[in-house]
Order: sequence, then C-alpha cells, then structure tokens
Amino acid sequence: MLLYHDPRAPNPRRVRIFLAEKGVAYDTIEVSIAASEHQKPEFRKKNPLALLPVLELEDGRVLRESMAICRYLEEVHPEPNLLGVDAWERAQIEQWNRHAELELLLPIAQVFRNTNAFWNGRIKQAPEFGEIMREQVCSRFDWLETELARRPYLAGPRFTVADITAVCAIDFGKVSNLRIKAETHPHLAAWHARVYERPSIKA
Amino acid sequence: MLLYHDPRAPNPRRVRIFLAEKGVAYDTIEVSIAASEHQKPEFRKKNPLALLPVLELEDGRVLRESMAICRYLEEVHPEPNLLGVDAWERAQIEQWNRHAELELLLPIAQVFRNTNAFWNGRIKQAPEFGEIMREQVCSRFDWLETELARRPYLAGPRFTVADITAVCAIDFGKVSNLRIKAETHPHLAAWHARVYERPSIKA
Repeated sequence: MLLYHDPRAPNPRRVRIFLAEKGVAYDTIEVSIAASEHQKPEFRKKNPLALLPVLELEDGRVLRESMAICRYLEEVHPEPNLLGVDAWERAQIEQWNRHAELELLLPIAQVFRNTNAFWNGRIKQAPEFGEIMREQVCSRFDWLETELARRPYLAGPRFTVADITAVCAIDFGKVSNLRIKAETHPHLAAWHARVYERPSIKA
Repeated sequence: MLLYHDPRAPNPRRVRIFLAEKGVAYDTIEVSIAASEHQKPEFRKKNPLALLPVLELEDGRVLRESMAICRYLEEVHPEPNLLGVDAWERAQIEQWNRHAELELLLPIAQVFRNTNAFWNGRIKQAPEFGEIMREQVCSRFDWLETELARRPYLAGPRFTVADITAVCAIDFGKVSNLRIKAETHPHLAAWHARVYERPSIKA
C-alpha cells in the first residue's frame, strides 16, 4: 500500500495513527501542501479534489478520503478493532468520531485557514469567521471536558477511531494557539496524556 | 422508534429518506429550530450539543448524529442495502458520501448560516465567509457534473446513502439561491431528476 500524505496535515495523520494501531506496513509519498504539490496535475490524477490523504492499493485502486481509508483498513485488518464490534457499538463510535470531526477538527481547521499567515495569498481568508470558530472551539473544549469526566475514552471504555480524530484535531489547534490546559480542562488533559502513551501517536 | 427532527433542516431529511428507503415505521417529534426549541433544556437532555436529528430507540437508547443513525439502521434493517455489500463497495460509498457532505452539504450550510437573515441575531454571522463558500459550492457543482457524466449515481451504478446526502445538500442550496441548471449542468440535473423519481424523496 502507498499513502500520499503531508506529515504536517491532520487528516493524513488520522490515517497514519490508524495504520500504526493495526500494525500494517505501507509506503509513503509526501505531497507538500506548503509547496502546493497537491494542486499539481500529477496528484490531481489521484484525487481531482486535490485533497490528502490518498491510499493506493497494490492493484492500483485508490481511496481518496480519510474515513473511507480507515473503514477499508478495518475490514481487511480487523484487529485491533477500532470501529466497533456490534451494531450498537459501531453506531456509538460513529457518533463520537463524527462529533470529534464536525465539532472539533473542522472548526479548528477553519481557525487555521481563515486566520493563519500560511494561507495568505493561497486561499481567500475571512478572519472574522476564523474568530467565530475560535470561540466555538473553546466552547467545545468545555463540552468535551464534561464528556471525558465520565469515561476514559471518547466513545467509551476503550481507545477507538474517535480518539484518533479528536487527538489530531486538538494537536492541530496548537498552530492557532488553541490549547487545552490541565488547570481548566483536567479530564481532557488526562485523556490527551492517556492517548499519548500509545506508540501509534508518533506515526 | 422516535425521530426528533425539524422538517426544514437537511440532516434530519437525510435520515427520513434513509428510513423511507428501508420501509421502517417510526414516530416523529418536531423540534423547531426557528422557535429555538433545540436550545431548550428538555431537548438538551437528549442532545447536549443541541443538534438534530436524534433517534430514540424503544428501550430509550439515543443516537445523536445523522450518519450514526443511518449506520445503525443499515445493520438492523439490512435491505435495501444503502451502505455497500463488501469492504470495497462500503469504502467507495463512504468516500462519496463524505465528499457529498464535506464538499457540498457543509459549504452550502455555511452559505446559509453566514448570509441568510434567518440567522440574524441568532448566531454570529460572517457574510464574507458565506460568499467564499458560495464560490466553492459553484466550483463543486462543476466537479460533480464531471463525476455524474460517468455514472448514474454518485457512488456507482446504484442509489446509495451518498445520493441521499447529495440531494439533501443541493435542495438545501435553493434557500441561498444556489441552483443547478440543466443548461450548464445537464448530468447533475439528470441525476437530480432520477433521484426525485423515488417515493422516499418526499419523506
């Protein structure tokens, strides 16, 4: 398998951590967003939307989207289970993974896209919207603190893909000075430390 | 089963069409976003994030998120299949469903949230960002036109959940004057008419 990725982007990191948890070997090709390599015709042949990550299988088939890749990997490498073992657990993990994406990762990405100098001249930015999203992220950190006061991992008693999405989101917030602090969010900080004990986090 | 929904919102509509395709009977409770009923403490007990839809099962268990609900329904009511029959098809449908959501529904929702008078005084709006998203939606309509020139449905030869997400997104664009036209997007318009032949579309 061949993963097209950028080491600095959060969505490819989700897939790399997922692969590391599965213990699956794969090759990588770096597609640098900073160098606009994702916009080049050669990469657009792999993904017309010019988005990372992309996974290419041995037979040349291509999957273009982070969760589509994770779902496929879960089926061909079922252990350790990261997406749920029965209908109810799968639904719960989907719910929390989508909360992590829609309520954390996407707003955090919008703060970065709309306020960071990195995107200056690359995309149209709306700093006002970035600041609205910054407020929303802070309120979502408070919400997450109440959730993680009740259980050790986002979707329940064990580590799942929802934790991968959430940790990639929160770590990506640092570049926009969105940081969780143990004084104000002790359970969220303890969960973050718990996730960081896993070797896969370095993937 | 009991579905908390707003008849005018796109995410509850995704679940209603999914349920109609499955032929499953259910009850509904309307939670009016216009009347801010989703913000009331009673509904927040069902979903602390104050988001719709929510599905409550007979035994009182609750699922709070549109795709988590669809995934659960697919497992307990497998026919007709809407999420894929094997690992590769499931990954393909996930990819296209997420493209429909991340590239169409979310930008279309951001146009509405940031430019429509409905939200005036309800949320902080950033009209500049709404206009950036409007441009993106138009470019995504062009992209979709090229995709639907190659196959009858978004994920392949048959109707799937990806078509449900895409049709709910495109119909939701109308309120923001985002419209597909047969003259400029003939394959997209033909696909839309094809989806509208299904009785489930009225759900």
